Amino acid sequence: MISVKNALDIIDSFPKIYTSEKVNLQDALNLVLFENVSSPINMPPFRQSAMDGYAIKYSEQEKYTVVKESKAGDSGNHSLKVGEAVRIFTGALVPDDGDTVVMQEHVERNGDSILIQKMPEQFANIRKTGEQIKVGEIALKKGTKLNEAAIGFLACLGITTVTVYKIPKVTILVTGNELQKPGTDLEIGKIYESNSVMLKAVLQKSGIKDVEIIAVKDDYQETKTSIKNALEINDILLVSGGISVGDYDFVKEALLENKVEELFYKINQKPGKPLWFGKKQNTYVFALPGNPASALTCFYIYALPLIRKMCGYKNNHLQKVIAKSKSVIKNPSQKTLFLKANLEGEFVEVLQGQSSAMLYTYAMSNVLICVASETAEIKIGEEVTCIKLEM
Amino acid sequence: MISVKNALDIIDSFPKIYTSEKVNLQDALNLVLFENVSSPINMPPFRQSAMDGYAIKYSEQEKYTVVKESKAGDSGNHSLKVGEAVRIFTGALVPDDGDTVVMQEHVERNGDSILIQKMPEQFANIRKTGEQIKVGEIALKKGTKLNEAAIGFLACLGITTVTVYKIPKVTILVTGNELQKPGTDLEIGKIYESNSVMLKAVLQKSGIKDVEIIAVKDDYQETKTSIKNALEINDILLVSGGISVGDYDFVKEALLENKVEELFYKINQKPGKPLWFGKKQNTYVFALPGNPASALTCFYIYALPLIRKMCGYKNNHLQKVIAKSKSVIKNPSQKTLFLKANLEGEFVEVLQGQSSAMLYTYAMSNVLICVASETAEIKIGEEVTCIKLEM
Repeated sequence: MISVKNALDIIDSFPKIYTSEKVNLQDALNLVLFENVSSPINMPPFRQSAMDGYAIKYSEQEKYTVVKESKAGDSGNHSLKVGEAVRIFTGALVPDDGDTVVMQEHVERNGDSILIQKMPEQFANIRKTGEQIKVGEIALKKGTKLNEAAIGFLACLGITTVTVYKIPKVTILVTGNELQKPGTDLEIGKIYESNSVMLKAVLQKSGIKDVEIIAVKDDYQETKTSIKNALEINDILLVSGGISVGDYDFVKEALLENKVEELFYKINQKPGKPLWFGKKQNTYVFALPGNPASALTCFYIYALPLIRKMCGYKNNHLQKVIAKSKSVIKNPSQKTLFLKANLEGEFVEVLQGQSSAMLYTYAMSNVLICVASETAEIKIGEEVTCIKLEM
Repeated sequence: MISVKNALDIIDSFPKIYTSEKVNLQDALNLVLFENVSSPINMPPFRQSAMDGYAIKYSEQEKYTVVKESKAGDSGNHSLKVGEAVRIFTGALVPDDGDTVVMQEHVERNGDSILIQKMPEQFANIRKTGEQIKVGEIALKKGTKLNEAAIGFLACLGITTVTVYKIPKVTILVTGNELQKPGTDLEIGKIYESNSVMLKAVLQKSGIKDVEIIAVKDDYQETKTSIKNALEINDILLVSGGISVGDYDFVKEALLENKVEELFYKINQKPGKPLWFGKKQNTYVFALPGNPASALTCFYIYALPLIRKMCGYKNNHLQKVIAKSKSVIKNPSQKTLFLKANLEGEFVEVLQGQSSAMLYTYAMSNVLICVASETAEIKIGEEVTCIKLEM
């Protein structure tokens, strides 16, 4: 049995190797750039009017003759003499001879002539070619997480694909004779299998959409074969259940038999003590406890950070905040506790129903309070560390 | 022109009617329950062992004979006399005659007999039928946002579909002769169309996946017809561009001609002044400015809260925090400013490149600083309101 800190240190030492893939820009939301992206064009690609108004060759005079029109999207480059103006619109090409755009609000127009009532400074209201970015310059750096603005920015440069940290492929293996698929009446002694549904949802939140789910009975051969197959095609294997020391817990043995190297087994924590973590080549295996609340806690604290790191996230662990406890917390066990709790403002309250079999409380929680193994008691008003469950 | 506050008051008065839809539980992540969900079963559905150990009929004696075994998933209900024990595993059915489970760690086993070294209290280590929830009780209330734990909880009750607030159907209509699709060399006078890519990404973040995109030229008839068709099948129509007062801005006229009621037009803010908001029956229309950064700001401040409210979110506006400004901010315009900025700890810094045509700065921002129209200057160290861009 190891401490939470040691377990996290082991998790944080992986992965050793990162992989990348090319994806369409429109599928790249929340993904992280694996390499710098250079701009293939100048942006703006030409001298653009920043206003609706009149492009002129700057001079002292107030009266100009409107000789042409330049709408957004027009490609004609009109010649322009002093005293001539081109009617122009926001985003439109400014004629090469024009150096200033006068806002339409500062102009009185009469037929083909305009009288400028407020002359701007020379060069005003023109966006210069490459003012935002020049061709060949770095648009976004390696490590940038692509939010909607980043995606819009790359799109406006004409970029349609990006190379990002590869999202790990994940399979969930659920074990247990007692598990029944929903949709039929529950048989005596059985429960509905819910861990895969829950884990699939939390993986989906992390950007992992295509998750395979395999269900096996408490049978050594079946477990071994399923693990063998899953190891071949996945980056992450999440096993649910079968990792305790009961006579029908075959997962650990089946993993070792499949030459998965054990990196740790059992953590001095509650819930989630029997978590097993191992590795075969570049595939990582988390054998999670079968109790749903324990499984979810182990996922948040250990599996999620590794997954997010593989995806290139810098802040790969869930965010921690300090809050004042509204509850007395007793910890005679000398284990690290993860307690489902509700954070409101600067106060946090431990919720009723901490049993590792109960998911209801988790559904109502927005944080986990983390109580260190060496802390025997927390009094009301004392500061505690909260792990935020928002992702 | 109206104030930001008045515009927000108008936005917040909608929608008047909410609609619901039934979805598969596995597709319900982040959706909000439209009605209470009752449990169709007791959970646990039967008396479960909470431990690996031995089920007994509680007595003073220390020695018991193991007569049967009950694994998780077994349906056999064994009779049990005082002095007899059933070997039992976590999650397994406790025999009706059994009232106590002794942990295996507290038992010495010799062949078919066990010696209990540490007798627990009577009724220990048994999860009672319906201890977590009883059949017919409310599992989750209307208004609950379904996170992974809530989905897992409903799955364990055998629930496979839920009725949720209907995600609005959204179409994006982009207007402008200057817009060119990416994938081909840019023609002179043109720019790549990026607003739809950006808006599609931010909608995707809000759980709206299937977004139709329609591109039209600056042509009144084409704009009018496209709006007409889009109004018929959508809950939200986002129009990008064509809403200023230029001679080729046809959107407002086309909306009014389609009998969309104008709820406001032009807000005393920078950027995003020409935002237009209207409604036809239960379809809402936002005509966003064409400049990408302005469009995104208007989306975050006005469109997103309405969309999130339609989805049943309680906190439908983006979260606000107070931070200390690292920048001098001048606001001679008497407009409300939304400035792209970076929040780090308790300090926030206005970023270079506030032009409404520039998305790069937005990609680097994690907040918008909101400066009230009546605030002429903010000094370094003064507190400012920041709108967090995390969703």
